[in-house]
Amino acid sequence: MASGVKKAAPDSIIDMLPIADGGEGTMDCMIEAVGGHIVTVSIHDPLGNARDARYGLLVDGTVVIEAAEANGLELIERDERNPLLMNTVGVGELIVHALDAGHTSFIIGIGGSGTNDAGIGMLYALGVRLLDVNGNELEPLPLSLSQLFTLDCSQLHPNLRLTTMHIATDVSNPLCGEQGATAIFGPQKGVRSEWIDSLDQGFRQLSVVIDRQFGISTADMPGAGAAGGMGAAFVGVLGAKLGRGIDIILEMTDFNRRAKAADLIFTGEGKTDTQTLQGKAVYGVVVRAKTLGTPVICVSGSYGSDVEDLYDMGLDAMLSIVPGPVSLEQSLLHAKAYIVQTCFQAMRIFLAGQRQ
Amino acid sequence: MASGVKKAAPDSIIDMLPIADGGEGTMDCMIEAVGGHIVTVSIHDPLGNARDARYGLLVDGTVVIEAAEANGLELIERDERNPLLMNTVGVGELIVHALDAGHTSFIIGIGGSGTNDAGIGMLYALGVRLLDVNGNELEPLPLSLSQLFTLDCSQLHPNLRLTTMHIATDVSNPLCGEQGATAIFGPQKGVRSEWIDSLDQGFRQLSVVIDRQFGISTADMPGAGAAGGMGAAFVGVLGAKLGRGIDIILEMTDFNRRAKAADLIFTGEGKTDTQTLQGKAVYGVVVRAKTLGTPVICVSGSYGSDVEDLYDMGLDAMLSIVPGPVSLEQSLLHAKAYIVQTCFQAMRIFLAGQRQ
Repeated sequence: MASGVKKAAPDSIIDMLPIADGGEGTMDCMIEAVGGHIVTVSIHDPLGNARDARYGLLVDGTVVIEAAEANGLELIERDERNPLLMNTVGVGELIVHALDAGHTSFIIGIGGSGTNDAGIGMLYALGVRLLDVNGNELEPLPLSLSQLFTLDCSQLHPNLRLTTMHIATDVSNPLCGEQGATAIFGPQKGVRSEWIDSLDQGFRQLSVVIDRQFGISTADMPGAGAAGGMGAAFVGVLGAKLGRGIDIILEMTDFNRRAKAADLIFTGEGKTDTQTLQGKAVYGVVVRAKTLGTPVICVSGSYGSDVEDLYDMGLDAMLSIVPGPVSLEQSLLHAKAYIVQTCFQAMRIFLAGQRQ
Repeated sequence: MASGVKKAAPDSIIDMLPIADGGEGTMDCMIEAVGGHIVTVSIHDPLGNARDARYGLLVDGTVVIEAAEANGLELIERDERNPLLMNTVGVGELIVHALDAGHTSFIIGIGGSGTNDAGIGMLYALGVRLLDVNGNELEPLPLSLSQLFTLDCSQLHPNLRLTTMHIATDVSNPLCGEQGATAIFGPQKGVRSEWIDSLDQGFRQLSVVIDRQFGISTADMPGAGAAGGMGAAFVGVLGAKLGRGIDIILEMTDFNRRAKAADLIFTGEGKTDTQTLQGKAVYGVVVRAKTLGTPVICVSGSYGSDVEDLYDMGLDAMLSIVPGPVSLEQSLLHAKAYIVQTCFQAMRIFLAGQRQ
């Protein structure tokens, strides 16, 4: 994009800002946008086997975690997946490693999870103990939750008190019920239909405990059901803030100030369609740019005819990168040259408008 | 195009100007651009058989002729084509009909011809007699030309004196020689290689006679070899002016005034490639727009990567109509919607530039 704009306007000042929406690639993207490096940690996967996982440490000390590094659906082979035995201990271990190193600012993307433990594995790794009504400790596994009476936080990692956590998610489902984590996302993770009721019952018990101990109602909270209920643990127990991934990332990268200083914003993605309107990166850019008064052009591989709403939201124009009827293979093969070319054209039209 | 622009800028004033480059479709296009109607005339085809042919009569009295209506390559079946027996009498008959009706302004596109008679059939229909050195009349056929001594113009249609003729051609070949009409375009019209020398000899004799009687040297004149040498007859005998088709049409449609009044010009074609640079319609628009200082956006079905020169010539930007990787069939099927959409996008980028 920058090459195309420079070709059309050699004297232009270009502020490049790689963005992501909290999903896969967020860590690398933030490191590129802000500066930083990757930290590799030995953790446990959802079945308790040791493996390496990464987090990003930005130059400003912010920790960027993609939870799926530790609890992703793809980490466990399909025939070994058993959501009754899988938890999020590894996610907690990633956080502990960063806390131990003294970091207190976290961005955690929780998309792509393969677990359905309401985040109790993660809480366990951070020092929380699950106790039943008799004060006996429970295993940090989903079916324990129906017996949960107390979350013992006396051994919680001490640095958590100083920590701010932004949890990036595009999911707005609640923790419990028909639209809850288990009912909606459980099946694709291996939850059998006959397990749903008892798992959901456990989640409801957790929400009762959280409500009693922390005064936060997670059962029906939008987003608490994200990542197999991990949203509830983050918000209810750790005091984290849930947000749309793109909003968190644009906030962290100082998007508003940078966009306000710009005469024109170029953004883009592979395919712009109705999913874009559900809160993807391009959507976030467009909505913010409108409030700032900076025009936005979206340059994508392709765009649908059903995205007219984007214009009302603030998009100025949308262009496909292809220079004519070509195959998808051709388009992918020449994507870089096509993007340069299309941004060149768009910039020249913009400049023509400026001259007139 | 107008729909897309209106959708982006409902208050815009749109001056629609259909253009052509002197080839097929010029007549209909000019009628749409300027207003007018079709006149149908009975004439003779290149082999002397009666047939109907059309010309356009614009509201300002200008006659628009596509010569191929009377001498087109496709009028005669391939196995009946014999360039030694075929002439342009029909083209002359079209002109005579318009002259008889009192019209004095002609635009004549001469592309797509199937004849190679140096326009002597056309001259014959207009009243010119071909005489040999003894004053005997010759048949208006190509092989007569080697015996030509005088063009007897005493019976030339009287209204021709008052007439202006603009001949639209994209061909710049001379009448005679290795780059001449017969050598270059003869073979595709059925001229056998053993005929080329004697036909070219006849053309050279015609150029000698024209030079002696009218003081105009057509043998090496660029464009005199257009349409099987008809260019020479028009320029040398009838005082017509040869020009690039698009230049003539833009002149007639008052393009400069209208383009100068515009803030932005949209043009386009099926495929923008190196042929565009050879003087096609888009080229003509771009070159003129640059001198007028009005920005131009070209919206085409597709564009090549080898048309960078167009930017130096004055083009601001080039966009393909397709919204992503699609097949040619898909692109043709949805061409109208795609054009609306692309012009909408381009106009919105232009407006964004104006606002900044």
